[in-house]
Amino acid sequence: MAKKNKKRPVILVTNDDGVNAPGINNLVDAIKDLGKIVVVAPDKPQSGMGHAITIGYPLRLQSVKLAEDVEAWSCSGTPVDCVKLAVDKILHRKPDICLSGINHGPNHSINVIYSGTMSAAIEAAIESIPSVGFSLLDYSMEADFEGAKKFARIIVEKLLESKSDKHLCLNVNIPAVEADLINGIKVCRQAYAKYEEDFDERKDPNGKKYYWLTGAFVNFDKGKDTDVWALANNYVSVVPVQFDLTNYVLKSKLEKTFKK
Amino acid sequence: MAKKNKKRPVILVTNDDGVNAPGINNLVDAIKDLGKIVVVAPDKPQSGMGHAITIGYPLRLQSVKLAEDVEAWSCSGTPVDCVKLAVDKILHRKPDICLSGINHGPNHSINVIYSGTMSAAIEAAIESIPSVGFSLLDYSMEADFEGAKKFARIIVEKLLESKSDKHLCLNVNIPAVEADLINGIKVCRQAYAKYEEDFDERKDPNGKKYYWLTGAFVNFDKGKDTDVWALANNYVSVVPVQFDLTNYVLKSKLEKTFKK
Repeated sequence: MAKKNKKRPVILVTNDDGVNAPGINNLVDAIKDLGKIVVVAPDKPQSGMGHAITIGYPLRLQSVKLAEDVEAWSCSGTPVDCVKLAVDKILHRKPDICLSGINHGPNHSINVIYSGTMSAAIEAAIESIPSVGFSLLDYSMEADFEGAKKFARIIVEKLLESKSDKHLCLNVNIPAVEADLINGIKVCRQAYAKYEEDFDERKDPNGKKYYWLTGAFVNFDKGKDTDVWALANNYVSVVPVQFDLTNYVLKSKLEKTFKK
Repeated sequence: MAKKNKKRPVILVTNDDGVNAPGINNLVDAIKDLGKIVVVAPDKPQSGMGHAITIGYPLRLQSVKLAEDVEAWSCSGTPVDCVKLAVDKILHRKPDICLSGINHGPNHSINVIYSGTMSAAIEAAIESIPSVGFSLLDYSMEADFEGAKKFARIIVEKLLESKSDKHLCLNVNIPAVEADLINGIKVCRQAYAKYEEDFDERKDPNGKKYYWLTGAFVNFDKGKDTDVWALANNYVSVVPVQFDLTNYVLKSKLEKTFKK
């Protein structure tokens, strides 16, 4: 209600599955009455691009049609490029919040580091724009987004109501179950869970080897305060993410190691 | 001396400037008598690739000639792909340490997040391989690597002598001055310093706009315990890096926000 007296917030929306993915449409649909929505998303899938930026090539923007009353652009670059370009060349200002997703597939635990979805959100936080990345634990393009939409809206409303830390960045994962079966929201830490790589070795028609990245997901972390635990128990996991990668515990130890 | 009785350590070397960059050759040259060296590095420059991995395409490996007694491979993927593929398909074991670099150009402060050099090192740490990324504050392919080589060797020797944390990851930057002018090593935290983007807008011969990423580096962090400060004062900066991105301070605050 207080919002009536305020200027409508500007909400930048991006993703890593590309501007045509159902996930980003579902995200826009869930929150489009909460502010002025501007979508700037990759023109093709960019999963696993992490925090890559485009240095050696120039970038292109193309106006696209997404939803009624929504300004939308496709960008030839990475998710991080999208955020940078949106702020500098489309919005000409910092948006009030940046939302990324809804990703088709999980970005919990170590996935946060490989994820283009989360890297876009982290980039926003670096640029002093509060941000949230949303991911649904379902890779399918026909996934049921109802639970994800419901909780995305709850979270965005809460953040718009309160004054967020300007470097706030949330990694939100939603279990792939019907909306009614979700038990609520758990604020978590990132689990130490990762993929155990096992490259699939093949030979091309010329007899030369090539390798496909595959692997099994293994959770080494038995904590009940992790995102992996929350999701396994049908909670929406919310992990606040930082971009200061300094390991302060190790820093104190190393000061002794490197003392003259 | 104690090393004579031990098995020679296996040292995996990678980078993001590509297997033909002078930096990786200088790194190998600086440390090649300290263990069995295996190089697996990108077949082309991969700067700014962050923690990108290759999902939609298969990867290739090609044996290359680098230095005497050094097994070397070029890989068609990203720096992170190189580490994964090296462990699974070349070494068939975890190396004792993974070294990345020497990068042509700085990777201090927020650069750690965009840097392929550092992402390779972080990937190793995720896989329980102690790692170091080295970067010289000189983008030139003709840079003077003497100071960088001297300190890379000192740091690698120290780490091989001691029992490192298996998730140890160091971000080492070396000032671009003569070796004799370097004042020593400082263990630091990552500065909050970043690029203020300013895309260069141009028109192609068909009149369509395109954008080059450019920007000015700005240090918002006046602390004297940061990597930026250390480098400005001719110290080698050593920042221990973590891959648990959980913001624990914000986690406590958010638990209140999301309480029912």
